[in-house]
Amino acid sequence: MSQIGVIMGSDSDYQVMEEALEILRQFEVPFEVIISSAQRTLKRTVDWVKGFEAQGGKLIIAAAGLAAHLPGVVAAATILPVIGVPMSSGAMEGIDALYSIVQMPSGIPVATVGIGAARNAALLAVQILTIHDPVLTLKVKDYRTQMLKDIEAKDEALQKRLTNGN
Amino acid sequence: MSQIGVIMGSDSDYQVMEEALEILRQFEVPFEVIISSAQRTLKRTVDWVKGFEAQGGKLIIAAAGLAAHLPGVVAAATILPVIGVPMSSGAMEGIDALYSIVQMPSGIPVATVGIGAARNAALLAVQILTIHDPVLTLKVKDYRTQMLKDIEAKDEALQKRLTNGN
Amino acid sequence: MSQIGVIMGSDSDYQVMEEALEILRQFEVPFEVIISSAQRTLKRTVDWVKGFEAQGGKLIIAAAGLAAHLPGVVAAATILPVIGVPMSSGAMEGIDALYSIVQMPSGIPVATVGIGAARNAALLAVQILTIHDPVLTLKVKDYRTQMLKDIEAKDEALQKRLTNGN
Amino acid sequence: MSQIGVIMGSDSDYQVMEEALEILRQFEVPFEVIISSAQRTLKRTVDWVKGFEAQGGKLIIAAAGLAAHLPGVVAAATILPVIGVPMSSGAMEGIDALYSIVQMPSGIPVATVGIGAARNAALLAVQILTIHDPVLTLKVKDYRTQMLKDIEAKDEALQKRLTNGN
Amino acid sequence: MSQIGVIMGSDSDYQVMEEALEILRQFEVPFEVIISSAQRTLKRTVDWVKGFEAQGGKLIIAAAGLAAHLPGVVAAATILPVIGVPMSSGAMEGIDALYSIVQMPSGIPVATVGIGAARNAALLAVQILTIHDPVLTLKVKDYRTQMLKDIEAKDEALQKRLTNGN
Amino acid sequence: MSQIGVIMGSDSDYQVMEEALEILRQFEVPFEVIISSAQRTLKRTVDWVKGFEAQGGKLIIAAAGLAAHLPGVVAAATILPVIGVPMSSGAMEGIDALYSIVQMPSGIPVATVGIGAARNAALLAVQILTIHDPVLTLKVKDYRTQMLKDIEAKDEALQKRLTNGN
Amino acid sequence: MSQIGVIMGSDSDYQVMEEALEILRQFEVPFEVIISSAQRTLKRTVDWVKGFEAQGGKLIIAAAGLAAHLPGVVAAATILPVIGVPMSSGAMEGIDALYSIVQMPSGIPVATVGIGAARNAALLAVQILTIHDPVLTLKVKDYRTQMLKDIEAKDEALQKRLTNGN
Amino acid sequence: MSQIGVIMGSDSDYQVMEEALEILRQFEVPFEVIISSAQRTLKRTVDWVKGFEAQGGKLIIAAAGLAAHLPGVVAAATILPVIGVPMSSGAMEGIDALYSIVQMPSGIPVATVGIGAARNAALLAVQILTIHDPVLTLKVKDYRTQMLKDIEAKDEALQKRLTNGN
Repeated sequence: MSQIGVIMGSDSDYQVMEEALEILRQFEVPFEVIISSAQRTLKRTVDWVKGFEAQGGKLIIAAAGLAAHLPGVVAAATILPVIGVPMSSGAMEGIDALYSIVQMPSGIPVATVGIGAARNAALLAVQILTIHDPVLTLKVKDYRTQMLKDIEAKDEALQKRLTNGN
Repeated sequence: MSQIGVIMGSDSDYQVMEEALEILRQFEVPFEVIISSAQRTLKRTVDWVKGFEAQGGKLIIAAAGLAAHLPGVVAAATILPVIGVPMSSGAMEGIDALYSIVQMPSGIPVATVGIGAARNAALLAVQILTIHDPVLTLKVKDYRTQMLKDIEAKDEALQKRLTNGN
Repeated sequence: MSQIGVIMGSDSDYQVMEEALEILRQFEVPFEVIISSAQRTLKRTVDWVKGFEAQGGKLIIAAAGLAAHLPGVVAAATILPVIGVPMSSGAMEGIDALYSIVQMPSGIPVATVGIGAARNAALLAVQILTIHDPVLTLKVKDYRTQMLKDIEAKDEALQKRLTNGN
Repeated sequence: MSQIGVIMGSDSDYQVMEEALEILRQFEVPFEVIISSAQRTLKRTVDWVKGFEAQGGKLIIAAAGLAAHLPGVVAAATILPVIGVPMSSGAMEGIDALYSIVQMPSGIPVATVGIGAARNAALLAVQILTIHDPVLTLKVKDYRTQMLKDIEAKDEALQKRLTNGN
Repeated sequence: MSQIGVIMGSDSDYQVMEEALEILRQFEVPFEVIISSAQRTLKRTVDWVKGFEAQGGKLIIAAAGLAAHLPGVVAAATILPVIGVPMSSGAMEGIDALYSIVQMPSGIPVATVGIGAARNAALLAVQILTIHDPVLTLKVKDYRTQMLKDIEAKDEALQKRLTNGN
Repeated sequence: MSQIGVIMGSDSDYQVMEEALEILRQFEVPFEVIISSAQRTLKRTVDWVKGFEAQGGKLIIAAAGLAAHLPGVVAAATILPVIGVPMSSGAMEGIDALYSIVQMPSGIPVATVGIGAARNAALLAVQILTIHDPVLTLKVKDYRTQMLKDIEAKDEALQKRLTNGN
Repeated sequence: MSQIGVIMGSDSDYQVMEEALEILRQFEVPFEVIISSAQRTLKRTVDWVKGFEAQGGKLIIAAAGLAAHLPGVVAAATILPVIGVPMSSGAMEGIDALYSIVQMPSGIPVATVGIGAARNAALLAVQILTIHDPVLTLKVKDYRTQMLKDIEAKDEALQKRLTNGN
Repeated sequence: MSQIGVIMGSDSDYQVMEEALEILRQFEVPFEVIISSAQRTLKRTVDWVKGFEAQGGKLIIAAAGLAAHLPGVVAAATILPVIGVPMSSGAMEGIDALYSIVQMPSGIPVATVGIGAARNAALLAVQILTIHDPVLTLKVKDYRTQMLKDIEAKDEALQKRLTNGN
């Protein structure tokens, strides 16, 4: 059964959001994905959200661009925590989506991450699930350790490069 | 029977939106008003929109601030033309609302007016109704003539002031 | 006889605005197109607008970039509803055009759509015409149904892709 | 024992953040508060975060203005989910704080809410805790119902006002 | 006979634009003033511009706020040089007016000064007239010398204040 | 003898500014060009400006990008009218240059044109010179007529294309 | 003899810049102050800078608003390090000044601090002087310790307030 | 022993920051480089900073993109002067990094240079070191003279090109 639902407003968002799915697979968190628009398929979106909550889903990641209403509409239809991902598209390159997601009115919050930050959305979802999941907690700690090692490795590579005269 | 429905996301929007109602009264266009939020009362909003369309309403004016989803959600729930009014509130003073309304994805347009431009929203609604209403057409022409006279009067007052040495 | 007039400030706007014409053809709404600039050919623009109104035109779509005065000048010269399309061009990528169109002073509204949103401009025009055209109403409802089916098809394709391990 | 830690960069943030505390009290979620700066008292901040995590805290809300590093530094020092609240202060009125919080690099997410949105930060925290707390789930549902009633009451008041000729 | 025409879109612009008139009086450059809107009184504006050019006017200063079309419309109707003054009004505090004036399309330039910079608009006009007016040249040089003295006087006052322990 | 001096902060500005020179050649206005930076070669810049003014130059066009000080420094060193051209370069694509040029403090105006608007800068210069040059006046009127014809020709081409089914 | 020169473009900047002087007095760093404008008194500004460098000055703090050229012009006239303080004034509230100062072209850097950040400008100056001044190093360490104590005291006050039921 | 430490948040920053290293080599200022993130490797960053200060380092250059916390975190961990370089990356192209670096709260300044301005960061560092290094002073003066010659050479090349009819 899916713990996390990933909803995106357009299939053009998939390429970026795939990074989120990769993280969820890596942490072995069961998830489901749906393409549905807040504006073009409002009822379908609300129905899916209510169904996902009813069947025991724990958290929703919603990604949309432009006047991004999807995360807010999802958040309005459920009391599950909703993570919003502003997508970069069109002339404003995601600033419009960021403002449309983060500036939610009082009462219906959306946990907003950076423009196009699919990976961080998934990591935030995983961190939220760690609150009651000690195994996942260990995995996140491992992930952090790995990040540290990656940076150390990159630094080491740079030091070699600098020593070798370039 | 109301031709125009005016929906606003919060009663704090009323003070500004009253200017729109004043215009509608002046042009004798029957209207109704409702306070309902896209995010806090999503279902109620959609129900009202569908009801308004069903009973023969012609056009909806929707006003909201911050991550203003109301005009877009209304537009998603009806094929009536929807005029969106971004309201100035909070730290971004309406820029967030403007982007959240005007940058709608392809398929569901919202006719956006300026930040806090309640009067223009009502005038746009009236102009749209003139397409099939010759009496209203005359009223709009009168209104335009009056605007011209107002500016001429203000100009005349200024010329006097300048002549009188101030 | 044309119901909708489409005016654009430069022939470089044509490639984007063609999407609007495509929609108008699809809905079988008769239209005419003109290239005329608010600044470079002010008189010609005003003459065309007045002619279009006189011969029974119902609505004008005006597209322009940079300090986009065309929609506002058109709106000043007619009481027909005017839909403004800010075009992306130059260093500001359409933010300048958006502000120049949407922030109209009180008295002369322009129904503004998103940056480069030619399709939405045409759909808004069509929705306005549905107010007194039951056949067009049905077509818009069909269009909406088709949008729903398109998203469902895209979602189905994604589900297959995910099931097949990619 | 505190489930939620609320950290703010300056005591000038307290007046706004008090709204968050009010929500937490209303939902009877135990919390603790600390004033500590990411930049002026970096070590003290990190020590408190590590202590809070060690003693079983579940989630941290971090509020800061200007070049708001506090939420990011807190998120770097713990794997607990961190909710960031950009505060409005100085010439940029919180845009700087928003960008400094939401645009976190890949690997260390911060769940960002709107500028000055203390109440939404607390509601998001509560919603996250509902994932494993059925009693809290009911309380959030009640809160939502109350929001609906509040809007209906405000709408009713408006209808009366309109009927009575004002 | 007026050398400079000062046109403003609204009488609310007068208070700021009075600073421009003060400069023109100080340099004894004959001028005339008119209130006329690009959008609300388009024809009246164009007629005045053409009349002003015909009777030997040399230069026009045009001030407007919001989607400020006045300077551009004036520039489109004459080959006299046009100085545009973006006025601060509404939620965008003049950024909208600045973009609407300065980003003119190729072919019709407007000499733009800063937001609300009425005095600089008048000084620019005077400097342009100095090209063929040696007496005015001397006056501008005197004005510059006076500016230097003013700053020196303010500096002297500050030095005294600092010496006196405050 | 040069009537117009064209100064640019970097030789990378030349490609864009060449459009200005082309206009000046077309109108047969004698000009000279110099590369000199406000910041890297401050004294050289000031010396050239003073020399250009002394030898009877009438007007200066100054182009610069980033924190574009060149137009302001030039304007500070002369009482000739100065036209500033903000160049697009770097991450802000000319917004920084626009603000650095147009927002001059009171006393030292710069006539600012759009970002990268070299052609408009030259046309503005030419229009300023027409004030005392009836021959140039005719040339500008011809140029305007030609612009009108160009747009009519483009419109005609479009009409043919539309009639021929594309 | 002054180690630090503080230059400001207008006496209206003094009220904010006084905070910088207060810091310099507190750290007993000898300084001098001058009001001089990059644009209105360019030569005077350059002369003062060259004199200050010649007499052994070590570092300059330059504050200006709007199209703030002062720090850049100062930096162009000396090889001493220059700290720029963007002042908030006018419609853009210091964003214009920030861009005009921080986006200096390659070759002439300005060490920019936040909008209106007079105190930080002085602290940065003091920190730069600590590089060769062990006594000043100790004072800065004391200042940092005092900041820590101030935050702890404010935190303590808050804890009391919370314990006492408010 | 290194006088300058260069720290960058990601190895993707290296390509731009290499320009800073080139300047430091040119001026023969000993330096060291490290890749370490404020958020992903907070402790490692702080440890390096403290070590660099302890071993007699004089100044740190810190480069980071997005919500760039690195310069601020470095500045919080040392009393050495810190130069911050906002890197352009992601949808906001460095505006986010600029605001995250320059708008530091009172008490912990960061000397900010332009977006991607690696070369200016290094030149600023060198200029700071000249305060107590007469040899370096001469080198900076030579560098400035060379900049002057470079611009003169480019100008000369342009004059030839213009004389030769292109």
